Amino acid sequence: MNNYRIALLPGDGIGTEVLEAAWPVLQTVARQHDFTLEGTWLPWSCDYYHSHGKMMPADGVEQLKGFDAIYLGAVGLPDRVPDHISLRELLLAIRQGLDLSVNARPHRLLAGVPGPLRSSAPFDILCIRENTEGEYSGAGGRVHRGGDLEVAVETAIFTRAGVERVLRYGFEQARQRSGRLASVTKSNAQRHSMVFWDEMTDRVAADYPDVDVTRYHVDAIAARMITAPETLDVVVASNLFGDILTDIGAAIQGGLGFAASANINPTGGVPGMFEPVHGSAPDIMGKGLANPLATLWAGALMLEHLGESAAAADLMDAIEEVTVTGAGTPDMGGTLSTGELARQIQAILGR
Amino acid sequence: MNNYRIALLPGDGIGTEVLEAAWPVLQTVARQHDFTLEGTWLPWSCDYYHSHGKMMPADGVEQLKGFDAIYLGAVGLPDRVPDHISLRELLLAIRQGLDLSVNARPHRLLAGVPGPLRSSAPFDILCIRENTEGEYSGAGGRVHRGGDLEVAVETAIFTRAGVERVLRYGFEQARQRSGRLASVTKSNAQRHSMVFWDEMTDRVAADYPDVDVTRYHVDAIAARMITAPETLDVVVASNLFGDILTDIGAAIQGGLGFAASANINPTGGVPGMFEPVHGSAPDIMGKGLANPLATLWAGALMLEHLGESAAAADLMDAIEEVTVTGAGTPDMGGTLSTGELARQIQAILGR
Ligand SMILES: CC(C)[C@H](C(=O)O)[C@@H](O)C(=O)O
Ligand SMILES: CC(C)[C@H](C(=O)O)[C@@H](O)C(=O)O
Repeated sequence: MNNYRIALLPGDGIGTEVLEAAWPVLQTVARQHDFTLEGTWLPWSCDYYHSHGKMMPADGVEQLKGFDAIYLGAVGLPDRVPDHISLRELLLAIRQGLDLSVNARPHRLLAGVPGPLRSSAPFDILCIRENTEGEYSGAGGRVHRGGDLEVAVETAIFTRAGVERVLRYGFEQARQRSGRLASVTKSNAQRHSMVFWDEMTDRVAADYPDVDVTRYHVDAIAARMITAPETLDVVVASNLFGDILTDIGAAIQGGLGFAASANINPTGGVPGMFEPVHGSAPDIMGKGLANPLATLWAGALMLEHLGESAAAADLMDAIEEVTVTGAGTPDMGGTLSTGELARQIQAILGR
Repeated sequence: MNNYRIALLPGDGIGTEVLEAAWPVLQTVARQHDFTLEGTWLPWSCDYYHSHGKMMPADGVEQLKGFDAIYLGAVGLPDRVPDHISLRELLLAIRQGLDLSVNARPHRLLAGVPGPLRSSAPFDILCIRENTEGEYSGAGGRVHRGGDLEVAVETAIFTRAGVERVLRYGFEQARQRSGRLASVTKSNAQRHSMVFWDEMTDRVAADYPDVDVTRYHVDAIAARMITAPETLDVVVASNLFGDILTDIGAAIQGGLGFAASANINPTGGVPGMFEPVHGSAPDIMGKGLANPLATLWAGALMLEHLGESAAAADLMDAIEEVTVTGAGTPDMGGTLSTGELARQIQAILGR
């Protein structure tokens, strides 16, 4: 019987609530599929920062390498720790430290979920986001701090290997899906990084003559995700552009309560990290209002990545068996609490 | 009788069609309001590039300073001139050369226009975009070009004066509108430029205690513009974030056919530039399919800026007198050509 060691990182805010609600559901689906999930809870968070002066132990990334996967709730409590510290020292530190170069986020409407768009054309978008460099490099600085002459610079750094590997992953996905890929840049305004990205797209595309490539500027595809999402399939974008486009993807799929994210290293050898996109939402924390579906969907992405595809599919089916009835948390127009919604799904799986 | 000298820059693609359709409408509204508009057509474009080796004369920006306003169609024909050349050497060169530090873009549904969102809550957003620096600075470069070690860097440069003036303009607008302002950053990931922007927001906010400020990360507000646009009013953002958010604004207001843009220098002394947001759309050029409403709306913003508020209001009223009937170009679900739609509006104004 396969056993998988999972690092459980609830983090901050509603991160704890959604992870605690989702974890027993994953245990149930594991039992049904004859494997076990062995969870280790790690308290790294803004609370941890207050008692230790850092968001995780110095060897945190090393510790994580001992697991098969990382299941994360959310990071950040801006009233306690500035976001640029909490996020850069935990979430981004793990993505970059484990070289999780690909961030994959599926966007489609779950059965029964209305979504904000008037059009009923079904869409199914897979956003592939570069996850370790680009606009999130952290390079830059400030001069004349606080004075009239102050200047801040932020340098986006794109390496050939970094751009190539995420594009290649996107092309592989496109091949397995509809054969269509959208590559996103802003090369009409950013003539160094984004012209480079366009060139890399052409180079990698040469190895995938069967994939149909369309180039979009980020502004144009942002609009298209609202006006004609059904025309898109695999979308490959830089770290920042992927960040923005996947929140748009979340919005059109019914809200951040639904959007799930897989941070993976396609060359293997390190655990992937699976998380809801929503963040810690301090305004609703501790009230049982958080939607656990994004975390459960992220759990399905984790099972899929571990090779347990049948379990992943069962979990998604169970989720949709509930959403189709219209039941859900308040953000879905329902009346269930975080735990109640998760338990309905667990009950279906345990049948 | 006031006379205004207008530089007419049709540019490329549908730019010519929409400007030629809109200009007579503006002449009509001017006649009704006892002022004159004296147009000078300037052929700067990708065609011009092919005969002159540049997008505009070396003293182009100087020439423009002699006008009261610039009315622009669209720039770019990627099959003829790479976008990063055509845009940077004409559109962005004018924005930066005339120090048009503010780009203001109104987003609301015109009467009768359905829009893509299911919710019918009326929204009225004014995006204020920094227009001369930031992510569009053009700084950066590449090493190991074409090789395995290739690296591209793109440096965003934010100056205190640059950030302050656009924020200040936003706060002034907020004061005249609902008293609410959203400041957009990505300070959880970009710790130099965006943390600086947050600090500047706090500094400028101290001078406007009557304005209610909310900070958003760009991904979160992108989603909010889809899920709850009615909760937003004045939105102030950097050059790149403003670019993306205003295409989202265009999408929710019915498409790029509606989105208008005012590039202005709030300190005066130079002409403002008024343009539709849509771009040159080579795929539909020359077919009479282009929607002239964005250009007409930009014309209204120009009249407003010239101090002809009554004329601007009449023009907007005439536009909505037509849209409310459901008549429009194909992108609006109608059957009118570019010229026919413009002439319907002109006929109302000439009554
Ligand atoms: C919290 C933030 C740093 C993060 C990001 O921008 O990557 C989040 O928005 C996401 O999309 O995972
Ligand atoms: C064409 C392009 C350079 C331009 C921009 O990004 O500013 C356009 O998208 C706009 O929004 O005016």
